[in-house]
Amino acid sequence: MGTTNDVGLKAQFDFLLELDRLKSVVRQSSLANGSRRENSAEHSWHLAMFALVLSEHADVQVNVAHAVRLLLVHDIVEIDAGDAPIHANTLSRPELEAAEYRAAERIFGLLPTQQAQRLRDMWLEFEAGQSPEARFAKALDRLQPLLLNIAVGGGTWKENAITEQQVVERYGPAIKGGSTALWDAARDLVRTHFSASGSR
Amino acid sequence: MGTTNDVGLKAQFDFLLELDRLKSVVRQSSLANGSRRENSAEHSWHLAMFALVLSEHADVQVNVAHAVRLLLVHDIVEIDAGDAPIHANTLSRPELEAAEYRAAERIFGLLPTQQAQRLRDMWLEFEAGQSPEARFAKALDRLQPLLLNIAVGGGTWKENAITEQQVVERYGPAIKGGSTALWDAARDLVRTHFSASGSR
Repeated sequence: MGTTNDVGLKAQFDFLLELDRLKSVVRQSSLANGSRRENSAEHSWHLAMFALVLSEHADVQVNVAHAVRLLLVHDIVEIDAGDAPIHANTLSRPELEAAEYRAAERIFGLLPTQQAQRLRDMWLEFEAGQSPEARFAKALDRLQPLLLNIAVGGGTWKENAITEQQVVERYGPAIKGGSTALWDAARDLVRTHFSASGSR
Repeated sequence: MGTTNDVGLKAQFDFLLELDRLKSVVRQSSLANGSRRENSAEHSWHLAMFALVLSEHADVQVNVAHAVRLLLVHDIVEIDAGDAPIHANTLSRPELEAAEYRAAERIFGLLPTQQAQRLRDMWLEFEAGQSPEARFAKALDRLQPLLLNIAVGGGTWKENAITEQQVVERYGPAIKGGSTALWDAARDLVRTHFSASGSR
């Protein structure tokens, strides 16, 4: 874009405009009011707010600002690789990882070299899920769609005929991996949801 | 929401679900691909990424994590008060400020008391525009729609018959207030845009 003489700044503007495309990546989860499905950009904002608000519940003390950073960048690769729904993977896991890795190279690679490396490292840290911040971020990335599904009376669980036991198996490990307290609360909400809806 | 025994956590879940409504607050700016108008939740994510990427250009050194926090919360009051378009204010400034203040009381007030105060203080800091982080955040909040307008060939400027001089008057002060370098680059882009489009 444009005419600025600052090559680094021009690269940063190009990257930031490329990020706009994440607003058009549509996820499976509906908004809490059921009006439409969520996109990955607004999802990332929502998760950053989850981190700001819920950090006291992490099992291990986390650097909140760093957890926020990880969540802001965690879905950027979906601009090229698309969203991978939890209940219906179309690509095999190695194929998906390869596509996301290529996406990270291309998209973060739009930035000046050192900054590209820093942001790619954040994404890799999130993916690896080993640091306290990455574990907490991954917990929130599972907790948020769980709350949205309950808010709309089932959402992707109803659409995919997911049982209570499957919810526990698919959401539990990631949420528990970052916060026992959040999983305890989420488990209660799931139990109430499934007993009210008469499903198993 | 729900059955958890932790009163604070229940309040936090209620607040986080209420935030979901920001995804339905539609702004004037179009996405860079022109497909639809932007909502305030995805706009907030985009701005947080602007802060992560562009902080080196702030005139005064900023705490990037704090600028990110301010941008994450800066539009939350729009859930009640709506978006106030830069080129067409319908409410008077005092009426708008009163509506936003009431919105902050209600929405942040869903949280446990101390946390409510912390987040309301971030919003007030952004609004006041005095701290280095607030000045930088406000600069980005003007820069982003400027770049989107140029990306779609005029956007809200064309819709509202805005001249180059009006763009300079309406975007310049806020952007310059946080970063001379970003305004210099933006001013060049605006000049190029208006000479290419044949408008003044």
